[in-house]
Amino acid sequence: MARGARPTGAALAALPVAVDAMGGDRAPGEIVAGARQASEQAGIAVLLVGRPGSLGDTGGVPVLPADEVIGMDEDPAQGVRRKKDSSLVRAAEAVRDGAAMAMVSAGNTGAAMASALLRMGRLPGVIRPAIATPIPNPGTDHPPTVLLDSGANAECTPDMLVQFARMGAAFSRQRYGVELPSVALLSIGEEKSKGTPLEKESHARLAAGEGGDGLRFIGNVEGRDFFHGAADVIVTDGFTGNVALKTMEGSMRFLIGSLTAILARPGLEQAAEALIPAMLPLAQELEPEGTGGAMLLGVDGVCVISHGSSSARAMVNAITVAHDLAVGGLVEAVSGAVGAGQPGADPPG
Amino acid sequence: MARGARPTGAALAALPVAVDAMGGDRAPGEIVAGARQASEQAGIAVLLVGRPGSLGDTGGVPVLPADEVIGMDEDPAQGVRRKKDSSLVRAAEAVRDGAAMAMVSAGNTGAAMASALLRMGRLPGVIRPAIATPIPNPGTDHPPTVLLDSGANAECTPDMLVQFARMGAAFSRQRYGVELPSVALLSIGEEKSKGTPLEKESHARLAAGEGGDGLRFIGNVEGRDFFHGAADVIVTDGFTGNVALKTMEGSMRFLIGSLTAILARPGLEQAAEALIPAMLPLAQELEPEGTGGAMLLGVDGVCVISHGSSSARAMVNAITVAHDLAVGGLVEAVSGAVGAGQPGADPPG
Repeated sequence: MARGARPTGAALAALPVAVDAMGGDRAPGEIVAGARQASEQAGIAVLLVGRPGSLGDTGGVPVLPADEVIGMDEDPAQGVRRKKDSSLVRAAEAVRDGAAMAMVSAGNTGAAMASALLRMGRLPGVIRPAIATPIPNPGTDHPPTVLLDSGANAECTPDMLVQFARMGAAFSRQRYGVELPSVALLSIGEEKSKGTPLEKESHARLAAGEGGDGLRFIGNVEGRDFFHGAADVIVTDGFTGNVALKTMEGSMRFLIGSLTAILARPGLEQAAEALIPAMLPLAQELEPEGTGGAMLLGVDGVCVISHGSSSARAMVNAITVAHDLAVGGLVEAVSGAVGAGQPGADPPG
Repeated sequence: MARGARPTGAALAALPVAVDAMGGDRAPGEIVAGARQASEQAGIAVLLVGRPGSLGDTGGVPVLPADEVIGMDEDPAQGVRRKKDSSLVRAAEAVRDGAAMAMVSAGNTGAAMASALLRMGRLPGVIRPAIATPIPNPGTDHPPTVLLDSGANAECTPDMLVQFARMGAAFSRQRYGVELPSVALLSIGEEKSKGTPLEKESHARLAAGEGGDGLRFIGNVEGRDFFHGAADVIVTDGFTGNVALKTMEGSMRFLIGSLTAILARPGLEQAAEALIPAMLPLAQELEPEGTGGAMLLGVDGVCVISHGSSSARAMVNAITVAHDLAVGGLVEAVSGAVGAGQPGADPPG
C-alpha cells in the first residue's frame, strides 16, 4: 500500500494493534498475557507478532508469524537490516501495509525506532522523528509533561527542535486534551542567553513564533523543573533528553530503594504498614508502567515503545494508548502540525 | 604578586580563607555565623569580605571591606567587570595577592567563577576551568563521585573533556584519597559508539590513555548511574552536567517533598515519628549542605562555590574543605595533572 493510503476512519478502527511478542525483558510471557488482557478486558483487537511456537496459549489472540528476534542489546540498524523476519520489522510492516492500526514493543528501543522509520517511513516534511516520553506530574492537576527528544537523535539542529515543539504539542493535545500546550526549551538557566548555540537559536525561533499557532512558547526551563507541571511539552536534543530521563529514573529508583530498605528494618514494621498504602498512589503515578510508554513521533504510523521491564499491566496500558492514538488521528495531527505554516516544509502527502 | 609566586607550605597555612560575606540567599547572617563557627570551633582563620556596616557582630573575625555586591541574578561577566569593589572580586584578589589561601562563596555561581578566573587566572596549560560537584553515594563504601563540568562551559571540545578527566581525578585523589580514581564519560549508552561526536572522540582519546597515569578510564556511564559509586569521576560538558545535576536535585526534592507531605497526614503521626529519625542519615548525606560545595578546578587558587541556600553549617563545611584543599596542595595537584605528559601543554609555570 502506498504511503498516504493508510486506512482511516472506520477501516482503521477495525484493525488490530500489532504487538511485538518477543521484545522486552519479560517476553514473551508478560507480553502475551498483556495482549490477552487488552483483548479480553478492554475489547481491543490485538495481533501478536513473533514465533508461534514460543508464545504459549494466546487465548485466541491471532499471531503474525515472525521467526527472528532482535535482542535487547543488539545493534539496532544492523538488526533491522539483517533480520527481515524479526517480530519488530514484521510489526512495523503490518502498520505500513494496513494490516494493523499501530505497533507496540517493549524491546530494543533503537531497533523499534529503526523498524518504524524504515518500514513506515517519515511523514512528509519531518526532518527526523523524535521519541516523546510522558513525565508524570504527581499531586498536581497537570497532565504528564511530554519530553522530546528523549533519545532518537543525539545531535540536533534548531530546525529539528522547532519541529519537536510542533510534534510534541500535537501529541499533548491529542493524548491529554491540552488545547494550547505550553512548550519550553530545556536549558541551563531561564534567560534566553543561556545554553549552547542550539538552545539560543531554537529559543529565538520559537519566541518568533516558528512553532506555529498550535502551541504557546514559554521560554527555558531547567532540570529541576520536572514533576511539577512547569510545561506541557519540554523540548531538547536526544542526548540531553536521554541523560535527563535516565537521571530522573536513577534518582527515583535510588531514593525509593533506600526508603524501602529503611522500612524493612526491624522495629519499623508498623510504620511500614501504615506508610506503604499511603505511598502507593504516588508510586503508581511515578512508575513507567502507568504512562503507556514512549512514542515515536514523525513516522507514518503509531509506534509506542514500552519500558524494557514491561509487565502484562504495562502492556495493557501501552496497547490501549496505541489504540486510542491511532483511532484519534495522532498521525494526521502530527502531520498537520509539522506542515502547517512551516517555511520550506513539503506539502502534506 | 606574580603568578606562580603564591605562598606555599607554612606561609600558605598561616593565611585565612576569604569568605564572600554578601553572597547567598541567606547572606550575610548565615555566612557570618558560619565564618564565626569555623573560626571559633574548627580553628580555621577566616577573612570575611563585604560591607563592614552590614555584617553585624563578626565575633572578632576580621573583615576585608568591599562596598559592592553582585546580585544572585546579575549577569556574571558584567557584574565582575563593573563592580570592581564587590565582595566576590575582592575575595578572588585576596587569593591572588597572597592575602588568603582560598575563597568561598555561596553567591552568584557564574560571577564567582568569573571573579576567580579573571583575578586568579588559569593554571598554565588549562584550556578552560570546570566546576566539579561531588555527588554522594549514600549507603555505599564509595566516596562521593565528582561530576565535572557541572556548568562552567556549555560548549566543550574533546581536548577539554580529556583535561576535565585529569583535573577531576586529581581532585578525587586530593579530596577523598582515592589512589587511582576511576573516570567515566557521561553518555547515552555503554558502547563507545554512543553519544555525539564529542563523547565518541573523548572516549577514543581517554581509552588511548590521554588521561595520563593518574586515572583509570572505565568507559561510558548513563544518567541512571549516579548515587551508587559507578565511578569516582564522571566527565561531561557543562550543559549536560548542569542539566543532570539539576535533574537529580529536582527529582530528590520532589520525592522527599511528596514523602514529607504524606507523613504529615492525620493518622500517620506514629509512622512519621518512627521513620523520620531512621531517614535522617540518608537525608543528611544527600543534602548539598554536607558536601562542602562545588569547586572551580583549573584556576590558580582554591575556589569553593557553596549552594545558594547555604546555612551556617554549610559554610563551616565549605570553609573547612577550602582550607584542607589549599593546605593539601590541590592547585599544585591539578596543575601537575594537566601538565603531566599532555602533548602541547604549556610547561608548568
